[in-house]
Amino acid sequence: MFRVKKLDVESGSSLVVVMNRQNARDMNIHLEDRVEVFWKGGSFVAVLQLSDFSTLPGEIGFMKEVCDYLGGKIPEEVHVRPVVKPDSVQLIKRRLFGTPLKGGEIRQVVFDLMENKLSAVESAYFVASAYVQRLSFEEEEALTRAMVDAGRTIRFPGKLVLDKHCIGGVPGNRTTPIVVPIVAAAGFVVPKTSSRAITSPAGTADVLEVLCRVDYSARELKSLVKQVGAAMVWGGALDLAPVDDILLKLRYPLRLDPVAFLLSSIMAKKKAVGADKVLIDIPLGAKVKDASSARDLASRFKYLGSKLNMEVRALVTDGFQPIGSGVGPALEAIDVIEVLRGKGPEDLTEKAVGLAGELLELGGKASGRELAWKLLKSGKAYKKFREIIEAQEGDPGVKPRDIPLGEYVVEYPVPEDQTYLYYDSEVIAKVARMAGAPGIKGAGVKLMYPPGSKVREGRTLMKVYTPVDTRVPAIEKFLEENAPLVSREMIIGTY
Amino acid sequence: MFRVKKLDVESGSSLVVVMNRQNARDMNIHLEDRVEVFWKGGSFVAVLQLSDFSTLPGEIGFMKEVCDYLGGKIPEEVHVRPVVKPDSVQLIKRRLFGTPLKGGEIRQVVFDLMENKLSAVESAYFVASAYVQRLSFEEEEALTRAMVDAGRTIRFPGKLVLDKHCIGGVPGNRTTPIVVPIVAAAGFVVPKTSSRAITSPAGTADVLEVLCRVDYSARELKSLVKQVGAAMVWGGALDLAPVDDILLKLRYPLRLDPVAFLLSSIMAKKKAVGADKVLIDIPLGAKVKDASSARDLASRFKYLGSKLNMEVRALVTDGFQPIGSGVGPALEAIDVIEVLRGKGPEDLTEKAVGLAGELLELGGKASGRELAWKLLKSGKAYKKFREIIEAQEGDPGVKPRDIPLGEYVVEYPVPEDQTYLYYDSEVIAKVARMAGAPGIKGAGVKLMYPPGSKVREGRTLMKVYTPVDTRVPAIEKFLEENAPLVSREMIIGTY
Repeated sequence: MFRVKKLDVESGSSLVVVMNRQNARDMNIHLEDRVEVFWKGGSFVAVLQLSDFSTLPGEIGFMKEVCDYLGGKIPEEVHVRPVVKPDSVQLIKRRLFGTPLKGGEIRQVVFDLMENKLSAVESAYFVASAYVQRLSFEEEEALTRAMVDAGRTIRFPGKLVLDKHCIGGVPGNRTTPIVVPIVAAAGFVVPKTSSRAITSPAGTADVLEVLCRVDYSARELKSLVKQVGAAMVWGGALDLAPVDDILLKLRYPLRLDPVAFLLSSIMAKKKAVGADKVLIDIPLGAKVKDASSARDLASRFKYLGSKLNMEVRALVTDGFQPIGSGVGPALEAIDVIEVLRGKGPEDLTEKAVGLAGELLELGGKASGRELAWKLLKSGKAYKKFREIIEAQEGDPGVKPRDIPLGEYVVEYPVPEDQTYLYYDSEVIAKVARMAGAPGIKGAGVKLMYPPGSKVREGRTLMKVYTPVDTRVPAIEKFLEENAPLVSREMIIGTY
Repeated sequence: MFRVKKLDVESGSSLVVVMNRQNARDMNIHLEDRVEVFWKGGSFVAVLQLSDFSTLPGEIGFMKEVCDYLGGKIPEEVHVRPVVKPDSVQLIKRRLFGTPLKGGEIRQVVFDLMENKLSAVESAYFVASAYVQRLSFEEEEALTRAMVDAGRTIRFPGKLVLDKHCIGGVPGNRTTPIVVPIVAAAGFVVPKTSSRAITSPAGTADVLEVLCRVDYSARELKSLVKQVGAAMVWGGALDLAPVDDILLKLRYPLRLDPVAFLLSSIMAKKKAVGADKVLIDIPLGAKVKDASSARDLASRFKYLGSKLNMEVRALVTDGFQPIGSGVGPALEAIDVIEVLRGKGPEDLTEKAVGLAGELLELGGKASGRELAWKLLKSGKAYKKFREIIEAQEGDPGVKPRDIPLGEYVVEYPVPEDQTYLYYDSEVIAKVARMAGAPGIKGAGVKLMYPPGSKVREGRTLMKVYTPVDTRVPAIEKFLEENAPLVSREMIIGTY
């Protein structure tokens, strides 16, 4: 018998109990073994952690997740016995050694991940396996389906549901809050979910949060869409494809490129909101470096979509340069409103209209691009945008000048006469992050000239906004040492 | 500023601080990021965990390792700022993607592992990388050297230090407590360290612990060897090559075969105790399944030894069958004493004498095998054994009958007339573990006939000892369903 001790700590992942090292040794059980904890009236299986200190011999510590799981009905004394690991541990091992799994096996792993049955180390081996040996088509399909089935789903019966997604990596590329209102203004249903930035200066959810609420439940998302035909919310609070978040957390420590899980991650979330037709934006020159990889990715999206009953159109777009003038939540929100009011940066306007046109055609409209222009120029898209913002508890009348920016401004001059401005996206993104983006909404970088401009030496090339004066010296120093402009490399790769 | 909260829990690996999820989001820092915690008077770098619960907004939780690290001088309030990850995170990522590291880079990873600078997930990716792409010779050498340098070392100046090691996997194969006394009786210095069982029914340290103390510090090991010329202790308390334990813990959840780290693990510990000449026992048919892998492993041991200034002789031995009659700590201890008294199982005696003979020749003696026999038969080895047991605080006069065995005995009869007994080592090991080995010393299996015997149906083939009556039914059921005998496969592999 072990006396139960409540530990005031979360494991962060699986159900974890902590035993004294001596007890574990006496029982022949080891760190990360599974144990069944049982008593008169209940039992559960947990992963074992060991301690010399938090739990004395004869004690067993329950971490927060265990106490939650038991709903407060915590026994005073329990028995413990070792149990075998879930099958998926063996599957993960096999996959790490190069054998692809069958669909049902992938499903087993996904559900065990979702139900917190795998420890962090075991889960990391699964992630590693996907980098060692790319997921097969069968695995990718099974992973995507299992991710959908392991989370919540929303359906809009009788409606044609359109959706879009960009694989990301381009500073300032904030097309969603323009494309969604255009397409919704044409009468389509668009339940758009977006992510927050992880390593970039702003995700779509961070930008929208400048203007309205974004953290809604799946039920609320459905009701928003019913109300105004579209919504633009953060995907993280919806519990759609929750396994995606688990995989993301496991990749983050090594900043592993999401490529191994990119398709399943995106397509599971589209399927979960009931999308029928999906437009995928693949910026070339950002995360995808060469045209053949971009084409390969596009065809994998289309194939996976067809397996899941979604029609996919994939666009390879120019991701070599920042898009729009603002980089950072508030500055990008300003760009978006300017575009919707007809005075925004040309490149962002062009791209958003292009995407919206494709999506309209995917929805069955003829001459989608012309229709998109018409909806934008007529103000119908802006009207729909304000409806969405209002439904999401924001101020629909907000003007760019109402959006606060950081009060400290670092101005960066054009270093010499430039015949062709070519920005270093990584430097721009880094500076925006140094200024405080995305956590500080008003922090970011404003590019005063679009890429390709001819500019005279000494003019202000960009302004860095930050509300934190102590960050200014580091930003100045960084910009001295890292020019935000590069010479363009015309040959990207040789094959 | 954050208020410090002491958390009554160990992280088990790196220095970990816990922040409220909201604070982390405001600061743009994420799970497993590194943060610098600083205050007037000190600072340290830790891995970040997140919580909704253990730490409220404005609080920072210090786990046990952090409090230990600060030696009790814990500030009340601290600042926190993000810092870059150690270089080794980038190195691990590179290696996971297939690029071998340079010697200095491997060294960096080893020292960061040792200094708790890497989180469990990051460390797991390093382990995974070694299964994806085998360590190169350069990496293996660097890993071994770094493991030695990261731990304690012992030297015996002016002495020729001999050592042996078996890669394991054969039930009952307890040669160390016989070989070491023989070789020490010939005047050689043998500072032998052994491991405890992890997934097998007994490790050498578990067996020796039946007879004497085995948990000594490095300083005590040195003093034991000075006193009687040899020692046989548990490697785990010595802090020799501590990184080996870290890697072991990371492999354990997936039961990853140690092969990727086998050489470095063994050779680092040999180098750490100052071994000049090392005998390696590679049982064929246990962990190594075919002769060519065994030869390959043997030559890698020799090569790595030469790089580290150790002369290595590697023996490929018969590991297809259990050795000796006992499997489990007490039963194996009994076998050992019987062999030293001249009445032990023939196969164990033969093997131990063979190994001792090779080791004596490695030490410069002529006709090693004859010398080993002489030292055993004359009782000189047994005398040396008793000296060692006495030095290690055991009873040198202990007799086999003094060693307690589990009081409940399951007898298993020979199922049919057998012309050639061929045991299933895995079933034998599993039954010994079910009986309670290695945690319960008196639990285990006694084989009544050696492999190859001709036995009549109905005779007692083996006895299972356990002190826990509740385990008896499960053992009986398991043996009904899993015969401990198999038919011998004469062709092991085709190449």
